Amino acid sequence: MKAEIIAIGDELLIGQTADTNSAWIARELAVIGIASERISVIPDREEAILEQFRRAFHRSDIVLITGGLGPTKDDLTKELLADFFDLPIVFRNDILKQVRDVYRQKELAFAETSRSQAEFPEGATPMTNDRGTAPGIWVERQGRIYAAMPGVPSEMRGMMMSFVLPRLKKMIEGEEVTLFRTLHTYGIIEARLSELLDNQKQIREQAALAFLPSYSGVRLRLTVENTLPLEGQRRLDRAEELVREKAEDYIYHVGEDGSLERGVAKLLQQKRWKLAVAESCTAGLLGKRLTDLPGSSAYFERGFLTYSNEAKHEMLGVPWELLEQHGAVSAEVAEAMAVGALRHSRAQVAVSITGIAGPDGGTEEKPVGLVYIGYADARSTTHLRRVFDKQRDVNRSRSAAAALMLLMDRLRGTSDEDQREMTLV
Amino acid sequence: MKAEIIAIGDELLIGQTADTNSAWIARELAVIGIASERISVIPDREEAILEQFRRAFHRSDIVLITGGLGPTKDDLTKELLADFFDLPIVFRNDILKQVRDVYRQKELAFAETSRSQAEFPEGATPMTNDRGTAPGIWVERQGRIYAAMPGVPSEMRGMMMSFVLPRLKKMIEGEEVTLFRTLHTYGIIEARLSELLDNQKQIREQAALAFLPSYSGVRLRLTVENTLPLEGQRRLDRAEELVREKAEDYIYHVGEDGSLERGVAKLLQQKRWKLAVAESCTAGLLGKRLTDLPGSSAYFERGFLTYSNEAKHEMLGVPWELLEQHGAVSAEVAEAMAVGALRHSRAQVAVSITGIAGPDGGTEEKPVGLVYIGYADARSTTHLRRVFDKQRDVNRSRSAAAALMLLMDRLRGTSDEDQREMTLV
Repeated sequence: MKAEIIAIGDELLIGQTADTNSAWIARELAVIGIASERISVIPDREEAILEQFRRAFHRSDIVLITGGLGPTKDDLTKELLADFFDLPIVFRNDILKQVRDVYRQKELAFAETSRSQAEFPEGATPMTNDRGTAPGIWVERQGRIYAAMPGVPSEMRGMMMSFVLPRLKKMIEGEEVTLFRTLHTYGIIEARLSELLDNQKQIREQAALAFLPSYSGVRLRLTVENTLPLEGQRRLDRAEELVREKAEDYIYHVGEDGSLERGVAKLLQQKRWKLAVAESCTAGLLGKRLTDLPGSSAYFERGFLTYSNEAKHEMLGVPWELLEQHGAVSAEVAEAMAVGALRHSRAQVAVSITGIAGPDGGTEEKPVGLVYIGYADARSTTHLRRVFDKQRDVNRSRSAAAALMLLMDRLRGTSDEDQREMTLV
Repeated sequence: MKAEIIAIGDELLIGQTADTNSAWIARELAVIGIASERISVIPDREEAILEQFRRAFHRSDIVLITGGLGPTKDDLTKELLADFFDLPIVFRNDILKQVRDVYRQKELAFAETSRSQAEFPEGATPMTNDRGTAPGIWVERQGRIYAAMPGVPSEMRGMMMSFVLPRLKKMIEGEEVTLFRTLHTYGIIEARLSELLDNQKQIREQAALAFLPSYSGVRLRLTVENTLPLEGQRRLDRAEELVREKAEDYIYHVGEDGSLERGVAKLLQQKRWKLAVAESCTAGLLGKRLTDLPGSSAYFERGFLTYSNEAKHEMLGVPWELLEQHGAVSAEVAEAMAVGALRHSRAQVAVSITGIAGPDGGTEEKPVGLVYIGYADARSTTHLRRVFDKQRDVNRSRSAAAALMLLMDRLRGTSDEDQREMTLV
């Protein structure tokens, strides 16, 4: 079963809205064993949409479409899908009723423009939208499935989970699938990891192997294509075993949803420690990442967003002399922030971030991108110094990642040399 | 000039990494007047890549490619681009020197696998990578431009800013371009805004008009295609004027980079107020959003990430009785958090978030997705109650948006009725 994903919308092509839907859909498909061969983002234009429908018909079994289902005249998906499969549009009172119900639930007067949502391709199946007014469209024709969903992420996800994924799962029972497994490593760069795995030939006999470097460690992805589920799992197990024989020490997580915060969470839970954070230039990004995972209250205790110097002093007890003598962006203040967070919380470990996120505010001595990460637990205090980038968002996200990496290092005890190498990835 | 964007990488097709590069590139192109006609995400596979290169050749003048430039054997972009334009690969000592310099800067021993970065298509221009080891490739042939860049966002952005965008800007001087302008509205739903703009015919004589609804307000996008820059600007000005004649009160920002936090920032600066936040379930997401903008220290003072009940009590002074009687997720606690944040900061206004982000932890009375937003300034205290979704990340991001909307309402004084309507979008 080959899938492809089409995202429709001019706003996606001027970069005003990022297409986050397609990656989400691709991941959900991958989890049930369906590989996505392609994602296309195309404009709200008839020729572009019809051409994409045609091409998809020839190469894919399943076509998942998002966007263009609204009531305004730039929304073309429903009409063109009906055209494409030659389905007449009929008015469906059952859909109108559902749309009216949505308005009633929100205690709003019905807007007449929403009537058009009840016009629906005959022979297609409506997919209920319990979060908005546009129903989804499921068309099964000539051995192909086309499923059109709204571009609003929560509406799309609701339809995927309640309708599309359960149906697809049923349809692929007993069929060949594509299986993935991802091993997340930390503390080693791509080139060294590749050297360390001198059994790659053996691994590749079991599964395809890909190296995926990122700021926060190299992921190893194992893939078995066109396999029956049991046989595929067996081969993934064997391949993982072969990787672990060589690189066990560097693997901190296995799964499609892994990330550095997952590794930190696991280590904190093993130690039964709680964490406090003190953030200046990231102002919440680190706390946000640490609590992205469900159940994070088991290890995240509190955080201090000490953006102003007054906040650093008043919330964390950073001495004024330190702020004046070394400046807010300094090793001394970073460590004092971490110590202060530990002291003013119920946590056993604390990490802090202070830096010049930019784009302005740098000096020759302290350029934009300079960041100090502080660390404190009951027995030790330390800091990291990094110089990242000129771009604010890059600096902030790398700073948060660096704080997670420092936590990972201190909680596991990575050697200093490995730590230094990591700065290249 | 028509552009298209190709992102290469298996990891993008299993949803492990979201393709954020393409949206960023599309936006930068839009700003200088180049329209992107299509974004394609394709796998690391020879046929898929070559087919995409071919199709792009027929329909686009500029093809921007990301990914597949690393040193490992799943990286195919350089080789295939050379094949496609029939350029022999030569070894370039100048590139090798640059790569060695990157290692030297990072104080790392040179990894021999990185030597292959110096193999380069003859006749193409290398684009210096000052953040990593893979050079970009700029090919101008047969009236087309193909520019291949690394998939690592900061490396790609560095190349776009220092090389690609300046060149493209120069090339389109005097040519026809596509110009956009986006007006960000708040406090009115799409259907009503469309009714209010009863001069749409006149507007559309100047520029194409699109309605882009989102959780946080409807954006109006004006577009003038195939225009000389001056003439296009004139038409955009006139179209904006026509929109403002009818909807002035609802517009809070004009620009491609607008967002709710920008509106809030503007209002805070007008009042010369500083803001403090108290976050429970979002644990930093709101603080992060408010400080995404450069210069945010002018209005963001500090934040309290009170994830545990102890933190709510100790950092904000929320009374234990309140927490026990109403629970941490309640109107009473939300307001007490906001009042506490005001009292324990130097801010003039405070906002708080407490909710059940999920996926677990809901009860019949307090379901997953229930969120209270609290507000306090020197004169008033209030709260909002919302029930969002079953999904943790959706709940968290809508909670942060709701807090920004409440701030916007209170700082401007939107009527309650308009406020209620906004919940439908």
